[in-house]
This record gives sequence, C-alpha cells and structure tokens, in this order.
Amino acid sequence: MKTKLKQVTGAVLAAGLGLAVTSSAFAAESLQDVMKRRNLSQQDLLAAAKTYTPSGKRDEFIAFSSGGQSGQIIVYGVPSMRILKYLAVFTPEPWQGYGFDEESKAVLAQGRIDGKDITWGDTHHPAISETEGQYDGQFLFINDKANPRLAVVDLRDFETKQIVVNPIYKSEHGGAFVTPNADYVIEAAQYPAPLANQKFVPLEEFNESYRGGVTYWKFDRQEGRIKPEESFSVELPPYSQDLSDAGKGPSDGWSFTNSFCSERYVGGIEKGRPPYEAGCSAKDTDYMQMINWKKAAELVKAGKATQVNGHNLITIDTAVKEGILFLIPEPKSPHGVDVTPDGKFMIVSGKLDTHVSVYSFEKIMGLIKAGKYESKDPYGIPVLSMKDSLHTQVELGLGPLHTQYDSKKCVAYTSLYVDSQVAKWDFCEGKVLDKLSVHYNIGHLFSMEGDSVNPQGKYLIALNKLSIDRFNPVGPLHPQNHQLIDISNDKMQLLYDMPLPLGEPHYAVGISADKLKPAVRYKVGTNSRTDSVHEGKTRAGQERIERDGNQVKVYATLIRSHITPETIEVEKGDEVTIYLTNLERAQDETHGFTVSTFNTHASIEPGKTVSVKFTADKEGVYPYYCTEFCSALHLEMQGYLLVKPKGYVAKGGSLAASDYTEDDYKKTLKKVADTQAVIDSVVGYIVGVNYKDFPDVVAMMDDAVDQLNRTKEAKAKSDAAAAKQDWEQANLWAEQVWQYQVKAADLGLRAKTYLEQNGAKPIK
Amino acid sequence: MKTKLKQVTGAVLAAGLGLAVTSSAFAAESLQDVMKRRNLSQQDLLAAAKTYTPSGKRDEFIAFSSGGQSGQIIVYGVPSMRILKYLAVFTPEPWQGYGFDEESKAVLAQGRIDGKDITWGDTHHPAISETEGQYDGQFLFINDKANPRLAVVDLRDFETKQIVVNPIYKSEHGGAFVTPNADYVIEAAQYPAPLANQKFVPLEEFNESYRGGVTYWKFDRQEGRIKPEESFSVELPPYSQDLSDAGKGPSDGWSFTNSFCSERYVGGIEKGRPPYEAGCSAKDTDYMQMINWKKAAELVKAGKATQVNGHNLITIDTAVKEGILFLIPEPKSPHGVDVTPDGKFMIVSGKLDTHVSVYSFEKIMGLIKAGKYESKDPYGIPVLSMKDSLHTQVELGLGPLHTQYDSKKCVAYTSLYVDSQVAKWDFCEGKVLDKLSVHYNIGHLFSMEGDSVNPQGKYLIALNKLSIDRFNPVGPLHPQNHQLIDISNDKMQLLYDMPLPLGEPHYAVGISADKLKPAVRYKVGTNSRTDSVHEGKTRAGQERIERDGNQVKVYATLIRSHITPETIEVEKGDEVTIYLTNLERAQDETHGFTVSTFNTHASIEPGKTVSVKFTADKEGVYPYYCTEFCSALHLEMQGYLLVKPKGYVAKGGSLAASDYTEDDYKKTLKKVADTQAVIDSVVGYIVGVNYKDFPDVVAMMDDAVDQLNRTKEAKAKSDAAAAKQDWEQANLWAEQVWQYQVKAADLGLRAKTYLEQNGAKPIK
Repeated sequence: MKTKLKQVTGAVLAAGLGLAVTSSAFAAESLQDVMKRRNLSQQDLLAAAKTYTPSGKRDEFIAFSSGGQSGQIIVYGVPSMRILKYLAVFTPEPWQGYGFDEESKAVLAQGRIDGKDITWGDTHHPAISETEGQYDGQFLFINDKANPRLAVVDLRDFETKQIVVNPIYKSEHGGAFVTPNADYVIEAAQYPAPLANQKFVPLEEFNESYRGGVTYWKFDRQEGRIKPEESFSVELPPYSQDLSDAGKGPSDGWSFTNSFCSERYVGGIEKGRPPYEAGCSAKDTDYMQMINWKKAAELVKAGKATQVNGHNLITIDTAVKEGILFLIPEPKSPHGVDVTPDGKFMIVSGKLDTHVSVYSFEKIMGLIKAGKYESKDPYGIPVLSMKDSLHTQVELGLGPLHTQYDSKKCVAYTSLYVDSQVAKWDFCEGKVLDKLSVHYNIGHLFSMEGDSVNPQGKYLIALNKLSIDRFNPVGPLHPQNHQLIDISNDKMQLLYDMPLPLGEPHYAVGISADKLKPAVRYKVGTNSRTDSVHEGKTRAGQERIERDGNQVKVYATLIRSHITPETIEVEKGDEVTIYLTNLERAQDETHGFTVSTFNTHASIEPGKTVSVKFTADKEGVYPYYCTEFCSALHLEMQGYLLVKPKGYVAKGGSLAASDYTEDDYKKTLKKVADTQAVIDSVVGYIVGVNYKDFPDVVAMMDDAVDQLNRTKEAKAKSDAAAAKQDWEQANLWAEQVWQYQVKAADLGLRAKTYLEQNGAKPIK
Repeated sequence: MKTKLKQVTGAVLAAGLGLAVTSSAFAAESLQDVMKRRNLSQQDLLAAAKTYTPSGKRDEFIAFSSGGQSGQIIVYGVPSMRILKYLAVFTPEPWQGYGFDEESKAVLAQGRIDGKDITWGDTHHPAISETEGQYDGQFLFINDKANPRLAVVDLRDFETKQIVVNPIYKSEHGGAFVTPNADYVIEAAQYPAPLANQKFVPLEEFNESYRGGVTYWKFDRQEGRIKPEESFSVELPPYSQDLSDAGKGPSDGWSFTNSFCSERYVGGIEKGRPPYEAGCSAKDTDYMQMINWKKAAELVKAGKATQVNGHNLITIDTAVKEGILFLIPEPKSPHGVDVTPDGKFMIVSGKLDTHVSVYSFEKIMGLIKAGKYESKDPYGIPVLSMKDSLHTQVELGLGPLHTQYDSKKCVAYTSLYVDSQVAKWDFCEGKVLDKLSVHYNIGHLFSMEGDSVNPQGKYLIALNKLSIDRFNPVGPLHPQNHQLIDISNDKMQLLYDMPLPLGEPHYAVGISADKLKPAVRYKVGTNSRTDSVHEGKTRAGQERIERDGNQVKVYATLIRSHITPETIEVEKGDEVTIYLTNLERAQDETHGFTVSTFNTHASIEPGKTVSVKFTADKEGVYPYYCTEFCSALHLEMQGYLLVKPKGYVAKGGSLAASDYTEDDYKKTLKKVADTQAVIDSVVGYIVGVNYKDFPDVVAMMDDAVDQLNRTKEAKAKSDAAAAKQDWEQANLWAEQVWQYQVKAADLGLRAKTYLEQNGAKPIK
C-alpha cells in the first residue's frame, strides 16, 4: 500500500510538470498525427478546445432540458455537453427509486387523473424560478402536455416535490413560464375541449362549448409548493393555445400566449374533409392573446371568478368587461412568443411565415389606453391592429419558431425550422446579422439565461428534432441532436453535436452554474419528498422490527457494508414496511435497496430515510441487498427476507459457521495492525497539510473517523470472545474491525489524492 | 427561398475552403486564446483531439453498458463518449412506447414473476453474441440481478424481443456470458436460496437446503430467441456465485464461475452476530467453479437431469459422478474470472487480495486427467490444487476486480477498486507494465471487444462508481463516471470523463461500429416485437373503425402531418384498440401517439405497426396527437376521441368552418405554384448530380415523391369543389396540396444539403 502511495504521488507530480506534448513519454502520437488520423481540421481543433472539459473541471452553465415523452428532465453541462442526470418527474424511474419507494409514490399519486395513475408525461417546457426577472436557481417547473399537469422540482436536491393536475384542460402545451418573481407559473391549454370535467359535447358544438385558457398557478416560494386554491385560470376561445411568456420591466403584469388554428377548424379526413393541417393553417393570421394577470389575480380576490371543477375561472365575458384580455393578429401558426430582456417587445415567430414580428408593448398600451380596437373576435374580445402594434418585421427565412436573446443589446437568435438554420438578428434595427446551418429541423433553441432580463451570451444551443446521418445508427428510432454554438463573436460557430439518448426534448433553459448550490447530503432522517423528518428515521443502535397484527415495520439502517437487520422474518400475508436510513455522511455514498422479486427499489442518499412497502404474499426465501457498488464488499451487503407459512413454529438449530482457530484470530489481528499502520501514514499526510480548507476532504474525514469509531465496539466484542476462547466470534469481530478500517483507509486515500491534486499546502 | 438556398450554398462553400484558424473570420479567438481562457494544457488539447468528434463524423466503436438499477441498456460511441440511446429492457419507458403499447407490454409480461409485474431490473452484465469467439453484432443479452431474468435484444433494430425468468433462482449476478458461438447464454445464481419455488426453509438449514447454480440458456440464433425447454442448470453448493466466463479455443466447452462467501456464513448483526461482510470474507480463499457445459448438455439430452419447477437440473451428485464439476481455490471474494483471448488462461481477481491469479487450463486438465484432487468440498465436489493450477500470480495493488485484454499479445488491464487505478500487465511473463490513476473506485473496465478471441485494443474504459468532485453537482445523487483511456501506446493516457446520467452501470462491452448494421425502417406493417406482420397493418386508404359489441378497433395511419381517422367516436365503457401504422419511408420520420389522460403512448418508427388499448371508462372529449416534432405542422397532427354517454343519439348540425372566397382559393393556388417552382429548382439540382450513389438521399427522394404523389388526389378534390364553387373545400384541399408540397420541399432541401456536404458530383 505504501508503494502504491508513492506511485500515485509520482504520477501526480509527473503530470504537474506540464511537459510539452511532443516530448512527453505519454504521447507517442503528436497532435498533428492525431489530427491527421482523425481527419480533424484546424477549425475542428478550435471547436474541440472550446468544448472539451478535462477530468475534474466544471462546466460554466447547466442546462435543464425537457425530456419529451420520457416524462423526465435532462440536466447537462455547457460547454462540455455531458449529460449529468435524468431527473425523474412524471415517469417512474427505479435508479432514483422514483415510483418504487413510498415517498415518491406519494408525489406521483398527486398526478393521478380521474382517479387513475398516469405513469408518464410528455414534458415540454421547463422554467427556472426567477427573482426580479433573473434566474435564481432555486426551483424548476415543467409541464406535461399529454396529461395536463405541472411539476415542481427543488434544485437544492434535484428532486420532484409536487405534481398538480390542471382541473379544466384536457391537454396543454404552453407551460411552464414564470412571472418575474415566480409568483405565478403560467400554463396554457392546447387543444380546445369542454372545460367541465368528463363532459361530452359533440364536435358540431365546437364553437359554442369548446374552450381554451391560461392557468396561473400560485407558487409559494417559502414552502416550495404550488397552492392550487390560490391559483386561477382565464377562459379563452377555442383557438388552440400555444406558448406563452410573461412580461417583464415595463410589461410586467401582463402575459402573452400564442394561438394556432384560430380558424376553429374541425378536421375529419376519414369523412372527406381536409385534415386539420390544411384547415388550421388556411388563414394568414392567428391571435396573440394578451392577459393582464395582475389585474386578473385581483379580480379573483374580489370574488369575480366562477368555479369550474372547484377551480377559479375568469370567464371571457368577465375578462372583456374588466379590460384584461386583448387579441392582436400574428403571422399564422406561430410557436414562440418571446419577451425581450428589457420587456419592451414581444417577438412572435409564425412558423408558416418567413418573418419574425416584433410587437411594441408601448404601442399596444397606447392603443388600449386610446380604446382603439380594430374589431372584436366572435367572442367579443377586442382585437388590436397588428400593423399599429408592430415595431418591425424582419424576413429571416422558412419556419421561424423560437427566439432567444444575447447579452449584447438588441441581439436575438431565432430558429428556422424548415431552413434548418439559426438566424442572428437585431430586433431594434430590424436586420439580419448572421445565419448558421444546423442539422436538421431545429425546433427550439436557447441561449444561457436567454429568456431572463439578463442573458449571459456565450453559448446558444439548437434543439434539432432529427439526427438522421449525424451519429452512428442505433436502429429505426434515432436520438435527437442538440448542437452547441459559440455566439461570442460576430459569426456564430458550430462547436458540438450532442445526441439525446432518451426522449424528444422540446425546450431547455441554461443557467450559470454558480447559481446552483445543491446539497450533497441530507440531515439524518430526512423525508426528501416532504422536506421534513421522516417517521421512519432510525439512528445506529435503534434498528428494530415491530409487529402490530399483520403489519410489520422494519426500522433499518445502511452503512458500508451492512444493512441492519440482516434477517427479516415474517409470515405469509404480512404487510411489510421497511424504513431505510442511510447513516453515511460522505458525499456520493448512496446505498440502494431491493428485496428480490418484490418489485421495489430505493435509492438512499447520505442522510435520507425512505420506505418500501409490500405484501409478503408468497412463502419462501428472498435475498435483499444494497444495489449500489458502495464498497469493495458491496455484494456482502445483504440479508434475507424469510416468509414463513402462517403459524410456522421454529424447529431451532444453530446457524452454521466454519471452525476458526486461535491462529486465524491472530492472523486477523496482524492484518488489523498492518492496516492501521497504513491509515496512520495517510492520516499523517492529511493532518500535515491544510486539509481543513477543503470542505470535501473534511466530509470524507468525518466519515472515515465515523468508520474508525465503530471499530471500538467490534474490537470489544472480539476481545471478549477471545477471552472466552470463542475463536469464531473473536476472529469474525476482528474481521469486522478490519472492514471498518478498509473503508476508513479508502476514504483517506481518496482524501489524500484530492489534496494532492488540489494544491494542498503543508502546515507548519 | 431561392435566396436562402444561395446562402446555404455560400456557407457550405466557405466552410470547405479550410481557412486557417487565425485568419478565418469565424475565429475571433485563436486556439492559444481559448487554451488560456479555459486553462487547457497541451496534454488536454491532445486528449481533446483524440476524443472530439465533429458534426456528422462517426464513432469507431459502440459501447453497450448495463444501466444498473434503471433496468435499461446504455448505448454510447467511443471515442466521442456521447450517449446515443437508453434502450428499454426491464423498465417501462414511454419515449420508446415500451410498456405503453400492447406489443412491448407482451414482452414485459414474459418477465412477470409469481404472477406479478416486475417493472424494473438491476441490469449488470451485457454480452454481445459471438461467432467463433468473435463479436458478431447480432444480439445482445443482459441480466436482471434483483429479479433473476435475462433479456434478448436484437441489434437489427435495438429492441428488446424476449425476457426469460430463471425458474430456480431468487437472485443472480453472473450473467449474461455467451459461449463462443452463442449456443448458450450463461447465468449464475448469486445469493443461495432453496431452488424450489416459494419454498420456505429456515436459515438454520442453510447448508443442507440452500443452493446456488449456473444456468445455460439455449439460444436459437435463427429465431433470435432463447428456448427455455432446451435450457438447463447445474446445481452448486450454497457458495454465493459471482461472475462467469465461457472457455474458448482449448478451453471451449467449459465455463468458469467465481464464488464468494464459500464460508457459507449466515449473518445476523441484529442478533449480535458479526455481519455478512465480516463472516463472508474471513477465509483466504473461495472457489472457482468449473463446469463442462458441453458434457452437461449431453447429460440433459440423455435424460440425466432432474426437474425442478419444470426446469432441467443436473444435481451436484450427478455432476460429480459424471465428472463435469470441479473446484479450485481462488483468492478471497473475487469478482471477475476472465478467460484470455487464446483460451489458455483464466484470470481471477480476488478483491481482498493484492494479486491477480493466472490459472492454466492446460495444468488444470492435466490434474483432472490424472485424477489428482487435493480434497473434496463438503458436497463431495473434487477440489484441485490452487498451486498446481496456477500459471502465475502478479501483485497489482489493492482491490483487483476485473480484467480485459489488449490486441497486443499477453497484455491485460485489471481494475483496482480500492487503489482507484488501472494496472496494465503481462499475463504471460507475470509483470506490471503501467499504472494509471482513475476517479474513484473503479469497478469493471472494458477494452474494445476485450473479452472476445480478438480484442481490438485502442481504447479502455474505466467504470467508476463514484464521481464526487468530478462534475458540476446535481444534488445528493451523483452520476457514475466512465473514463476513456487511450491504450494505443506504452503508457496509458486518460482522455475523457463521461458522467452517466441514469442508473449505475456495472459492466459494458464495446464493439467495432462497422459490425453493427441496424435497419432504419421496417417493412410496412411490422410488429417489431415478434418480427412478423402485424394483425393491425393498415395501408393508406384502408383506415377504418370496426365495432363488435363493446370492442372498438381503429385501424389508423400516420404520415406528415395527419392521423387518419381524425375523429374516433365511442361510447362510455367501450374497449378501444387503436392500431397505428406509420406510412413514412424516410429515415427518422418517427411519429408518436397518445390520447390525453388515458395513460398510453406509442413510438411508431417508419413502417412499424403498434397498438394501444384502453377502456373508455369516462365520458368526455379527449384530444389525441402525434407526440413527435415531425414537421412544421406537428401540432396540427391531431384528432379527438369523443366518449359519448351510452345510447347517445346525435342531434345533427354541421362542423363549423370559416367562410372562404374565390380570392382565398386563388391565393392558395398561387402559393402552390410558387412552391412548385422551388421544388422544381431543388429537384433540378438533385437529378443533376449523382444522387443515386447516396442511399440516404434515395430514401429521402422516395419519401418526397410519395408526398408529391398525394397532391394528385387533393388537387382533384380541390378542382371538383372549385367547379361547384364550394370555395371552402376548394381552398382547403388546395391548402392540403401545399402541405404535401412543403414536406416534399423540406425533404428536397435536406437531400440537397446532404449532397453538397458529401461531395456529390454533376452528371453529364
């Protein structure tokens, strides 16, 4: 072990010399050789240098992408484009125990619709919580289009905490979008339907009885939860609602929601009618729907909302009467409506028009104040003049879809779906600055903090829906392709293609990494889904099995490398709940837990308590084990669930064990002494440097000391057994001392390497 | 649009000039600037050049990694380390429709245990099918440790085709491993338990009644399925079985399976007994279990197997009597047993020993032939001398775990779990060649085709269990870390850290990318889970709704951008099956399908037919739509499921539509003519070059022609309506002509770009 330490030290020192590539013994191939072999251009090398992130270096931004039909959220680093986590939201995911432990099942149960489990979601638009229009990195919201729901993720632990079901829609697309202080989370309907639940209305009554709307979910930042009873919706005509955005700065208090199929066309290709795609895109314009949500919230407080399915609804009539709802024509079949960072303009992309349209909030307010309406729509909503509302229109190309902003004033980026291009343009002057081809059929795009009041520039990411020839083939179902673009300079430069291995992301947001400060451990006994102390919290020494009738409750703990208890005996038919507390404090020392064939799994991060529950409905012997490779002896982190026949009476007998001799015991003692010497040497190094300046090392040391403290009790048992010449017990408890040592040594070695690589300095 | 084409062409030409980095207008920052800003060393740049893969370039190798507790398989490219797909195996996954359409539900149902759904798996060890010991890239097998099962994936379409439940184990770890022609897939038990199903036996009878074993699943390559009735197991003592490997070359016909806890220790920390981790690692050696599987298969054919749970079992007694089972001591708590490419040696890593042990197959056969047994174990199995079986032992460091091989003769790589290092060493000479530190606690490792008879060298990947400080933090649950290592040279070089965003991978295999030839489309009407024609196959024009009592069957098709039919009317209580056929032929033109709030989703790749089924148990109006962003009008690819009250009688009335005039119709005709001109121009370019040399372009052209052919019928309807002065129908069918044109134009533009970028040449 000491030899090894020297080797590590040697290697680390050698790496630190910064030898030139051509002269280093590591590099049999020169950079030129590699470029030639791999057919890389100078331009490629520059791109590589801009995205490649060496071991241990961090990313500058973190992206949160919808996971599409996977029902999850994808977290990745920018510019390395490495996916860090698939965060479970609407779909059960066993690695995280999501939908397999009782705590997360309770979250998923909030998302039941009409009394039934919905085990997936079509996630579309994530939004990061904002403070004064700036991303604050505290919470993340995401919608489910297929089953109109919204989820709240806490970025302190990257876990889904809440799911709310929209009480009046049958589908939704245009959410989540937050108001500038995350007071409300905006969610718009998509396909019109009757708002009353489980209400059948024939399509012939589409115009009269089908409706859309926009919902404003009240968010309580202190509790980190949405308050359904304080939330409300504004009813809209049966125009299919699309994306939304909240106003900011001068336009704060208003929200903007696109629509398509304002033709209110009802298809029926099987009956000889032209399909929706023809009838829904026949007219040149649809409507931008403007809502004064601040005033709407006041109307709700003033009791002017009606109740639909127990939910506050401001009807179209009320909204018109109170002057909080307006329409403005916009180029047909638009997708994005994106408020500029200064809050002065709303930029709309009509997918079937070659222009982006820049609406002036000031002009619009002027029209409203002057009462200048061009007309009313069939539902009596005032329609403002498009021409009089526009600041400018710019011809960008085919299929403009979504716009994001740069840190540079007036600079915007718009995706062009049909052209498969990104256009960089100036929305103040109304001119195109640059174009870049991407592959293929870009949907959304996002720049870093690009829809906040303070975009960060630097990077833009194109979310391309097809990948076709971009990657090695993996069967008929292809990944999507997120392309990283450098926007630091006048000309955009394509840097990197990232395949998306799961789901079809729609929209993403990127935040400065330094705004995220997630925890690495929980306070011992935390129920992470309720942020409270878990009823099953168990400390070392408190492990127990309690029975009440056929209800069996097991209070268990996990620590490298054993589960306590190691045997659980129940009778057939018992309902078993196992509470699991992870006693570790070291970062990343997660344990997993499953009982074979009982379809349950838990992920128990340091400090967490979770529970798994099942009915022991079959006799037999079922191993349980830690499903994480948590130490060299993780396979031995095991136990047995014994399901006995009802009324089984034990026959007695003793547990088999091998014969151990005094020699075995002495050999183990020698091993323990040798290992202690190694530990002492490592500890000697660590305390000889400024390790206290490294919080990660302090955490590892805490845990190592914890492991070493446990040797005392094991040693006492070993000594006592030796005194009685019980060599089996003496030897095995000495072995257990060694097990604790090994884990402490492992932590110590990791800490030492960390210190060496992070420039720890000797203390005097 | 023509302007745009010129712009694209211009950009492509400019990019082709290969301008030097410093002089290019694209590069405001020089390479040196970037290296300085991002703090990259020359060594980092070299690593970047070795892994960075520019847009559109392919990877040299494809890795298949277990997905751990995610229950899936991860597919990624090497050296780019980009994840291409999470392939659904044991856990329902909605993006792929896996567990949400009826066909994949049938696959998952094969994995039910004791009559109940198991909705996850703890996948550990993938294996690629082999022909004469070489990876052939046809099939992939993977195990589920928690619920002893094995899955078969067909690499023609990267879909899971079969799940088999092990009939006698309660857990398993050591699978999948294939014999050199994939005649059998090997799966070993892990924690001992009674072999009879649902049989309770107290732990006091552990030695007498708990057992392990190795199962040999018969694989039928023609059918691409495992044949359970031709499969068998060999019973083993209650030593916990660990990993296995099949012999090859001289050792073909044998298989080798490690064990741990051959102490047969039963823990019980809650009763004051030392835990498993102490008692299971107290002795210096465990046993390598050698089985002559070829002879075992003959014994089964000869009727010498007994039946347990309807499965062929060769008992220990029979195995001993027939001379097909032997034990050899091996260093304690081993993980990997890895047969060398030449089949002459088996290399065992005892995790708690500092050595790797190289066993000589020749020496072992000599001992067996000479009948030289050192002893017998308590179950009567002959034990060979460890000393006499060894070729050599090499001290590598702490925690040796798993060994893989290089293309260079005698060169092996072994992971060192506790040291967090990779050792490169020579197993012929028995000497260490190089060591490399990795982060942290490496479990398995794999080199390219590194456990076949023909390893490819070049790259080695370390599967590290912790990532701690390696990546930006994402909460208490961290990703794992796969580190890419260049092994082309004498010294290993660390190239890249790849976070694993989902699940804890255990083992992975890498194959030359050129051995994989997956399809990009299905023959129209294929049931991909059974490889046969789907009963619901529907061609264009055959769409229909059939009713039989309360059984409603909808035969639907999908093509950009409409679903036929667009209205489905049923009564409350009806059982609805929707068959969905994707008529597309273009690569990557996948459609998705869901009915809002009915918890169903399908992914329908080109040519596939799938079905979704549900009971319409609530009245109301439920939109359905394509969940893929399949064209600019994907949102309009919609329809309505109307669930009427039982016995509802339609009131009549007409579907609302806007008034259209002759002017509208003429405007649309003008748009159609303009678009046709663009299409003609694109087609002019394409047919002017050697496009037939590009299969991808030919497929796109097929699809474009298909779209254009559809204009005929729409145009006829438009013309007929115009003749009758029905301007609504005339205009909307003309709009539909344009919709077909837009998709054809989109395909044409993609094809043109592809041709320009791939060096198409004018034809004369």
